[in-house]
Amino acid sequence: MKIIHLDESKIFEEKGIKRFLLHDSPYFRILNFNLQAGQIFPVHRHPAEGQVSIQVIDGTGQFLGEDEAAIPAVAGDILVSDIDEPHGVMAITDMRILVTIAPPF
Amino acid sequence: MKIIHLDESKIFEEKGIKRFLLHDSPYFRILNFNLQAGQIFPVHRHPAEGQVSIQVIDGTGQFLGEDEAAIPAVAGDILVSDIDEPHGVMAITDMRILVTIAPPF
Repeated sequence: MKIIHLDESKIFEEKGIKRFLLHDSPYFRILNFNLQAGQIFPVHRHPAEGQVSIQVIDGTGQFLGEDEAAIPAVAGDILVSDIDEPHGVMAITDMRILVTIAPPF
Repeated sequence: MKIIHLDESKIFEEKGIKRFLLHDSPYFRILNFNLQAGQIFPVHRHPAEGQVSIQVIDGTGQFLGEDEAAIPAVAGDILVSDIDEPHGVMAITDMRILVTIAPPF
């Protein structure tokens, strides 16, 4: 049993997206990424089986996908994607996302 | 690729904890439970391998555990527990939690 406090990783960086590994186990990996306004988590995919959830916990931006898809993303929105399906995030305001990968690859 | 809007399941019930199944796959199950002030998700465990994360998305309460453990839980706090380890939640104010189970059992 373990407690994570998301308010302790509310840190942004000019030079790039700030990444916090919050939990890692054979079952899921939980990460917090903090994007300053304008920063982009480029669309990518991994050749692995599994799914990823990307939850906006703060701020406003877009979920990015295949063929330049851009879906509005505000706090309380969650994208669920296969790990091998193209996915990314673009921050309009400063934006925090919680990412859960199951299983970790 | 699928989008979940947590603001669409902001519904509470007098008669008991309100449950929303948001996503289910072989990799993880995502649920939202909404507890009115005073409602309790009793301590329980399942004889299954895997882990569960319980994220407070709104409100204030306590994470419950073995031996009457009660840990303060506010928005932005996440409990990670083995599925077969005792865990529960008690709401002090109206409280919303996001539960991710990997793998589903």
